[in-house]
Amino acid sequence: MRTVDLIQRKRDGEELSQPEIAFLVEGYNSGEIPDYQMSAFLMAVYFKGMTDHEVSALAECMLNSGEHVDLSAIPGLKVDKHSTGGVGDKTSLVAAPLAAAAGVVVPMISGRALGHTGGTLDKLESIPGFRTNLSIDEFKDQLGRLNLAFIGQTPQVAPADGKLYSLRDATATVESIPLIATSIMSKKLAAGIDALVLDVKVGSGAFMKRQVDARRLAQMMVGIGRRMDKRVQALITDMNQPLGYAIGNALEVMEVSQTLQNVGPVDLTRLSLELAARMIYLGKLTATLEEAREVAQARLLDGSGYRKMKEVIEAQGGNPQVLDRFELLPNATGAREIIAPRAGYVTAIDAEDIGRASSIIGAGRDTKEDNVDPAVGVVLEVKVGQKVDAGGVLCRLYYTSEEHVEDAAQQVEDAFRIASQPADERELILEVVSS
Amino acid sequence: MRTVDLIQRKRDGEELSQPEIAFLVEGYNSGEIPDYQMSAFLMAVYFKGMTDHEVSALAECMLNSGEHVDLSAIPGLKVDKHSTGGVGDKTSLVAAPLAAAAGVVVPMISGRALGHTGGTLDKLESIPGFRTNLSIDEFKDQLGRLNLAFIGQTPQVAPADGKLYSLRDATATVESIPLIATSIMSKKLAAGIDALVLDVKVGSGAFMKRQVDARRLAQMMVGIGRRMDKRVQALITDMNQPLGYAIGNALEVMEVSQTLQNVGPVDLTRLSLELAARMIYLGKLTATLEEAREVAQARLLDGSGYRKMKEVIEAQGGNPQVLDRFELLPNATGAREIIAPRAGYVTAIDAEDIGRASSIIGAGRDTKEDNVDPAVGVVLEVKVGQKVDAGGVLCRLYYTSEEHVEDAAQQVEDAFRIASQPADERELILEVVSS
Repeated sequence: MRTVDLIQRKRDGEELSQPEIAFLVEGYNSGEIPDYQMSAFLMAVYFKGMTDHEVSALAECMLNSGEHVDLSAIPGLKVDKHSTGGVGDKTSLVAAPLAAAAGVVVPMISGRALGHTGGTLDKLESIPGFRTNLSIDEFKDQLGRLNLAFIGQTPQVAPADGKLYSLRDATATVESIPLIATSIMSKKLAAGIDALVLDVKVGSGAFMKRQVDARRLAQMMVGIGRRMDKRVQALITDMNQPLGYAIGNALEVMEVSQTLQNVGPVDLTRLSLELAARMIYLGKLTATLEEAREVAQARLLDGSGYRKMKEVIEAQGGNPQVLDRFELLPNATGAREIIAPRAGYVTAIDAEDIGRASSIIGAGRDTKEDNVDPAVGVVLEVKVGQKVDAGGVLCRLYYTSEEHVEDAAQQVEDAFRIASQPADERELILEVVSS
Repeated sequence: MRTVDLIQRKRDGEELSQPEIAFLVEGYNSGEIPDYQMSAFLMAVYFKGMTDHEVSALAECMLNSGEHVDLSAIPGLKVDKHSTGGVGDKTSLVAAPLAAAAGVVVPMISGRALGHTGGTLDKLESIPGFRTNLSIDEFKDQLGRLNLAFIGQTPQVAPADGKLYSLRDATATVESIPLIATSIMSKKLAAGIDALVLDVKVGSGAFMKRQVDARRLAQMMVGIGRRMDKRVQALITDMNQPLGYAIGNALEVMEVSQTLQNVGPVDLTRLSLELAARMIYLGKLTATLEEAREVAQARLLDGSGYRKMKEVIEAQGGNPQVLDRFELLPNATGAREIIAPRAGYVTAIDAEDIGRASSIIGAGRDTKEDNVDPAVGVVLEVKVGQKVDAGGVLCRLYYTSEEHVEDAAQQVEDAFRIASQPADERELILEVVSS
C-alpha cells in the first residue's frame, strides 16, 4: 500500500477501505507517513468528503490510536454532552449538574476557547482555585462520589486526533464535516462513555453556518456512535445570537449560577433543561424522554443541580461560595455601555461579532498559546425581538485594560441590527437527530 | 500575510495576488513555509485551478527562484522545443538538428524517462561516451559553435520547481494543469530562450488523456510566454499510438538516424519537420511559416540535419559512427516476437501499455533512482490502420534479461486492438495554439 495512491484515490472521489484508512492513521500517528502527505489527504477529504463507512473507520482508528479510559468500575451509565461551540454557550455547566443530580454519571471532558467561541475549561478556571487537571484516578474517584467531574483532554486519549487537529489548523482543513465528526467522536468514545448528547450549533456564531451542514455533521456523529453501539442524540440549535446574556468566563459562571437557581435567561434555561433531559433519558434513568424532562425540571426547581455544582467546585479545589458571592470571582475594572443609535426592534445580534469582541478584550484566544482574562467580556442588555429606545443600552463591555476597548466596542456595535419591525421569531432547538 | 489564510482562499476558489503567490513560493523555497502547508495548497490548486494571472505569477516566481542562464552573448534567437512526454517520442533528436542546421540556436535542456514515457537524456546517453552533464560554459561554447547542445536540468535553474515537483509526486498533485504549465515554463524561461515550440501530447500514452485538457495546458503555457514577451507556439498531437516504430533508448537513436536520413517513419518525420519549421519560424529565419517548412524540408533532404547531429554527438564525447553502424550502440541479447492472434486491421495500439512494457524490461524507470537499460525496448512491426494476418508479427520485444519478459509480453499483447474493419484515420497534429 502506498500513501500517494490512497491520496490519489480520495482525490478522485473513491471510497477507501477500513484497512486503507487504518494504514493512513497508524502510519501518521507513528510518524511513518509525513505531515505533507497527510495534509494533502486532508485537503482531498475537504473537497471529496467521506462515506459513512470511511467516517466510522477513521473515528475508530483515531480512537484506537491511544488509551481508552475505563470507567466500568463506576456503576451506572456514563453520559457526556458535547457542543460544537458557540458564543455564550455555557449549557454544559448547567445541564451536567442537573443530569448528575438526577443520577447520571457525567464524565465531562471539555475544551478551551479558540477563535470567537468559548471553552468550558476556561470558564471553570475563572473560579479561584478550580483545578481541571485532575489525574485519571482523581477523575474516576470524583465521578464515583459525585457523578460529575470536569477535566481537559488528556494527550493519552486519541493522540492521533491531537496531531491531526494541529495539522488541519495550519492547512485550512478544519472546516470539513467528516473531519470534525471524527475528531469529536474519537475523543468522546475513547473516554469510556455509554451515550452522548450533542449540541450542534448553527448560525453566524457557529462553525456551521448552514442548517444543512449542521444536519450532515449531526447525522455523521450519530452514525459513528450507532456503529459502535453507543446511544447518541444530537440537537441542532440556533447560534444566530449569543446564548443567554453573558459572554466571558467569570461573567458566564455568574449566569450559570443564576440559571441553576432558576432565575437565568429563558433560552439558556430551556436548552440546558432539554440537554439534561436527554442525558437522563440516554442514561436510562427514565423510560421516556417526557419523564426525563420532568426529572430535569425537578432537579432545577429543588436546587439539587445548583448544590451539585457547588460540590463539584469544592471537590476540584474551587471556592463554592463564588456561586452566591460574585465579588469572589475575577471582576473587570472598567465597563463601557454600547448605546442604541435609534429606537426599534432588535432583529439580529451577530454572535460571531460579539464573540470576537469579547475575544479582543481578552476573554478568548486566537492561538492556543494565548492566555485568557477571566474577568472580561460582554453582557447583553437586550436580545433579539426586544424593543429598544434611542440611547438605550444594548450591552456592556467589561474590561481590565483600555487597550482594545475601542476596537471591541466597534465590533459589538456592528453586531446589533435594529429595525422598525420585529423579525420573525426563531426556534432555539431546530431539529433532533437520533439513531 | 499568513500561509493558512492563503491556502484557505485558494481552497475557497479565490484568486491570489502576485505578492501572495510570491510569498508562498519564496517562503517555500527558503524553507519558512513547511512542506505540509505547501502540499495542502497544491491539493487546493488541484481542485480549484488557477487563473491566468495566478499562473503567470507562479511561473515568474519559480523562474526567479534561481539563476537565469544568460545566452545573450551568442548571436541569434534561441529557440527550444519541449514535449509533455510520450511513448516513442524522439522528435527532439530530429527537429533540433534540423532547426540548428537551418541556423536556429537551440539550447536544448531535456529530461529523463519517468513512468511509461521516455526521456531525451536517456536516449542520448545510450550513445557510448555521450556526456549530458556539460558545464554552463561548455554548453554556451558549443551553442556558439554548433547552434545545438543538449544538457539536463541544472539544480541552479528554477530550484523551486524541483522542490515543488518532488512534493507533488508524493502527494498526488502532479496531474494539475496549472502546476504542469508553470513547472515547464519556469524551467524553460530561466534557460535564456527567446521562443519555444511546445508539443502537447494527448491520448492514452500521454499525461493528458483528453484534448480539452491538452488545449487548456497549451493555452496556459502560451499565455505565460506571451506575458513574458516570449514567442510560444504549441502543437497538440496524438499519442494514441507510439510515435514511429521504436520504443527504447538505443532503438530510438537508430530510428532518429534513419529519420534524419529521410528513411524514417512517416508520422515521426512529419511531426519532426513541423516542429523544426516552427522553431525556424519563431527564430525569425524566415518571414512565413510556409517558408520555414520549406527550409526544414531542405535541411532534411540535403542531409545537413543528419550531419549536425553527428557533430553534436562528437562534441559531447560520443561516437558519431553510431548513426551509421548500429552495432556500436548497446544491443539487446534476446528478442521475442508478439504474434497477431487473428487476422484483421490494427485499430489501436495503446501507447501507455507499450511504454509500460518497455519500462518493465528496463527501458524506463519507476522512480528517479532507477537505472535504465539502454539496449532494451519494443519495435513495432505494424501501426494503426495496417492489415495483419493471423500469426503475423505485431512487434518485437528486445531484452537483456529474461526476468520480466513474460509480464512485458502480456502487456504488449493487450495493447493491440485488431478488428475486421479499419478504424477511422486519426490526425497526428490535432491543433495549433499560438499567441
